[in-house]
Amino acid sequence: MTEQIWSQPITKIEPNKVAVRGYRIDELMGRVPFAHVVYLVLKGDLPTEAQGRVMDAILVSSVDHGATPPSALAARTVASGGAPLTASIAAGIMTINRHHGGAIEGCMNVLKEAVARKREKGQDALTAARKLVAEYRAQKKRIPGYGHRVHTDDPRTKKLFAVAEKEGVAGEYVDMGQAIRQAMKETLGKDLPMNVDGAIAAVLCEMDFPPEMGNGLFAIARTVGLTAHVFDEITNQRPMRRISPTAQEYSGSPEREL
Amino acid sequence: MTEQIWSQPITKIEPNKVAVRGYRIDELMGRVPFAHVVYLVLKGDLPTEAQGRVMDAILVSSVDHGATPPSALAARTVASGGAPLTASIAAGIMTINRHHGGAIEGCMNVLKEAVARKREKGQDALTAARKLVAEYRAQKKRIPGYGHRVHTDDPRTKKLFAVAEKEGVAGEYVDMGQAIRQAMKETLGKDLPMNVDGAIAAVLCEMDFPPEMGNGLFAIARTVGLTAHVFDEITNQRPMRRISPTAQEYSGSPEREL
Amino acid sequence: MTEQIWSQPITKIEPNKVAVRGYRIDELMGRVPFAHVVYLVLKGDLPTEAQGRVMDAILVSSVDHGATPPSALAARTVASGGAPLTASIAAGIMTINRHHGGAIEGCMNVLKEAVARKREKGQDALTAARKLVAEYRAQKKRIPGYGHRVHTDDPRTKKLFAVAEKEGVAGEYVDMGQAIRQAMKETLGKDLPMNVDGAIAAVLCEMDFPPEMGNGLFAIARTVGLTAHVFDEITNQRPMRRISPTAQEYSGSPEREL
Amino acid sequence: MTEQIWSQPITKIEPNKVAVRGYRIDELMGRVPFAHVVYLVLKGDLPTEAQGRVMDAILVSSVDHGATPPSALAARTVASGGAPLTASIAAGIMTINRHHGGAIEGCMNVLKEAVARKREKGQDALTAARKLVAEYRAQKKRIPGYGHRVHTDDPRTKKLFAVAEKEGVAGEYVDMGQAIRQAMKETLGKDLPMNVDGAIAAVLCEMDFPPEMGNGLFAIARTVGLTAHVFDEITNQRPMRRISPTAQEYSGSPEREL
Repeated sequence: MTEQIWSQPITKIEPNKVAVRGYRIDELMGRVPFAHVVYLVLKGDLPTEAQGRVMDAILVSSVDHGATPPSALAARTVASGGAPLTASIAAGIMTINRHHGGAIEGCMNVLKEAVARKREKGQDALTAARKLVAEYRAQKKRIPGYGHRVHTDDPRTKKLFAVAEKEGVAGEYVDMGQAIRQAMKETLGKDLPMNVDGAIAAVLCEMDFPPEMGNGLFAIARTVGLTAHVFDEITNQRPMRRISPTAQEYSGSPEREL
Repeated sequence: MTEQIWSQPITKIEPNKVAVRGYRIDELMGRVPFAHVVYLVLKGDLPTEAQGRVMDAILVSSVDHGATPPSALAARTVASGGAPLTASIAAGIMTINRHHGGAIEGCMNVLKEAVARKREKGQDALTAARKLVAEYRAQKKRIPGYGHRVHTDDPRTKKLFAVAEKEGVAGEYVDMGQAIRQAMKETLGKDLPMNVDGAIAAVLCEMDFPPEMGNGLFAIARTVGLTAHVFDEITNQRPMRRISPTAQEYSGSPEREL
Repeated sequence: MTEQIWSQPITKIEPNKVAVRGYRIDELMGRVPFAHVVYLVLKGDLPTEAQGRVMDAILVSSVDHGATPPSALAARTVASGGAPLTASIAAGIMTINRHHGGAIEGCMNVLKEAVARKREKGQDALTAARKLVAEYRAQKKRIPGYGHRVHTDDPRTKKLFAVAEKEGVAGEYVDMGQAIRQAMKETLGKDLPMNVDGAIAAVLCEMDFPPEMGNGLFAIARTVGLTAHVFDEITNQRPMRRISPTAQEYSGSPEREL
Repeated sequence: MTEQIWSQPITKIEPNKVAVRGYRIDELMGRVPFAHVVYLVLKGDLPTEAQGRVMDAILVSSVDHGATPPSALAARTVASGGAPLTASIAAGIMTINRHHGGAIEGCMNVLKEAVARKREKGQDALTAARKLVAEYRAQKKRIPGYGHRVHTDDPRTKKLFAVAEKEGVAGEYVDMGQAIRQAMKETLGKDLPMNVDGAIAAVLCEMDFPPEMGNGLFAIARTVGLTAHVFDEITNQRPMRRISPTAQEYSGSPEREL
């Protein structure tokens, strides 16, 4: 039976050679930081130093958010039935979807649409943002990436924008994010700051990532926290316990300075 | 109904504050590289600069291995049925288990046992290794972390040991890894070099990681490659296609220098 | 912290009592066949005897389709990495999605739309079908549930319609399914018989199942075959083998009569 | 590249023919009940009528157990993040493992060991049971399949044994299950009746199922309940809600008679 050969553009394997996107992994090791390699593997080319540092900040920002996100609860619950570490982590990762983490993709789509229109019509950001906010409102569609159920002024958002600014990566998508916030404030009479999903969305747009990769980036970062949660569940908790999403507290290291 | 409060030691969430293992995430962002934060989240404390760089090299080494590992095939196959990005990635991650990636944990257990005995009996590494290899042989148990189905002299192994050496992280576990190779060569008459799983195992032992976390670290690194594979499958391939594990080739960027 | 109590309408648990949809499980056992209980759990009420027998035929029809569907390949591939039975089955189940099994939901939506219009406009089935086929064609949308990559005249389709007919469950949705086939034949000049997904879709419409449950019913039936495939993989195959989707054959019992 | 052809003994696919374990699916449909086909697919041969009815009762017994088992909570939690129906069901299925459902496999292993010894030594059941219970106690190993966190006298257990008795399927494994209960009562001074997992274990032993298939059978039955839970979560609940495992009640149909 002849089979058609299919191809993939990610990694070349030959005896004693492994090359991702054209670079030998052993040459990347020790020279290019992991976060920059994440950028390389996903985008196909190495980032500039500035882009690499922004990607690093994105990944650090999303590494964990405690035990209440559904991904952490799902992962711990699967572990409590006796599943192995990786199956439990996997359950957490598949929880990342439209409602959980999905705001990155959703907000990227909105920002791309708004900036495309702005360019097309030669408008300034605020004019384009007002138009878009009015339309979304008329269609009763939510604009993802603004507001948070816990944080009113998310420190991760501020820091990510500061890093992007300092590295020269912030541009018209970050501006549009702020313009939309302003336009929503005028319309709704309520100031909803961008949340960390929105900030990541803006910065990923600046680095030309496709929106459909939003959940993937979030999954890469959050796998770290999920691994720690599952390991803790397996090591320190009773099998089949009832895992309350609310009756829960932090028992780790007290706050400390870098 | 009163519920008992349970606790987790990983992340503290308060309004406008997210702190992992005691450090505010917004302070980590832009200052501590992602790979070092991975170490922090999993181990509970920040690595030294040297340990952080070794962890970075570990993560880069395992980022992808092309389309033939079962994790990549499972992820692409799930995607071809129409599942979303994260469910497909998750299928890849749960494939990482005893036989796929599991050599890290297996080899860590062997190295820990061998070094513990060496210390206990005041033996040198090679003596302890010969004893252990003979025992494993008598019990027909395989020693994981040696040999590879594609690579005879894995460049990732050499580089990881070089980085660990340079950073002063290599010690008695790395030595024991070499001693076991020597002992197996004497016994089997065949030189099986450590593969990348074995090298990671030795270096994780040096940094005092628990063996049960081996698959977790591998999963963190490989999520990157899986995301790229699934994105490629969804974007560039036909749904429900038959995904051959053999009739496959690399079509990406030609080799390039850093 | 006071928590809001949430409710679910499926199963009541009290000490020494388990009641699904109002019926005590121990009373159902031995009296109501499993397939009828599937109907009860999903729909909320027991089927008539006729509906129960049709549901039974649906479940039997989808129990397995060999080793080439992506669900079977994904499940076997995950198992080959060393994952446990249930994680491997789970990977198979999550492969059932838009492209694999999804034709049931897709076809139910088409049939419901077509019958709703027919009723609304007082048309006969063929007139409504021609209109709908023309519209789908103009919008370049495919009508799911017709044609098969292996079977030109699927024996499961014929049998399911025969059972539905005999049990008095076939009605205007089954008719509409045939009318659409006729309309497509007139338009495309090609006769695409309904496949088993399409037949199941028509019969589920007759029993008033929501289309969004289509993949669920398919998953329930296929879990059986997936369990057998994963068990076979774990028991009889080599770990980490390359699982070809094409170089594969049946080695089981020769054909036999009931 | 020549590929080795691999084989599977489950289903033969040819154009217009689908045969599981040698029987054409269209001949099974409408003639052999789904539960009997489950037996056929898993065991390789059709059950007797009696065995088929016992298998039916097993599957009905495990169809659901409300919202508190970790499988139901994991499935609902994954759904609340926005994952599709089948990914959410899959998360529930992979939760079925050592601690959740695993008692079936565990108890089958114990019963098989006890009966093998009884036969070997020509002992009566109680003597063999006392010996085994004493050994397990000395090694501080738990005997799975006895006691339940909610039910003291599980009606499903009684009914399953009654069905097995009536169908002539109950034999020395069911006897041994009772002998072990008696031996534990003598030793612990506490009467722990068999739970439904234990009862299923005994009956599966009678029908010569391998213990490693225990979780698979449980998964097949429970997929039904999981589908209903996930559908309810997607249809009737708010995304990203906090799903309490305790502050929860039944809101379905009042109790009713068959």
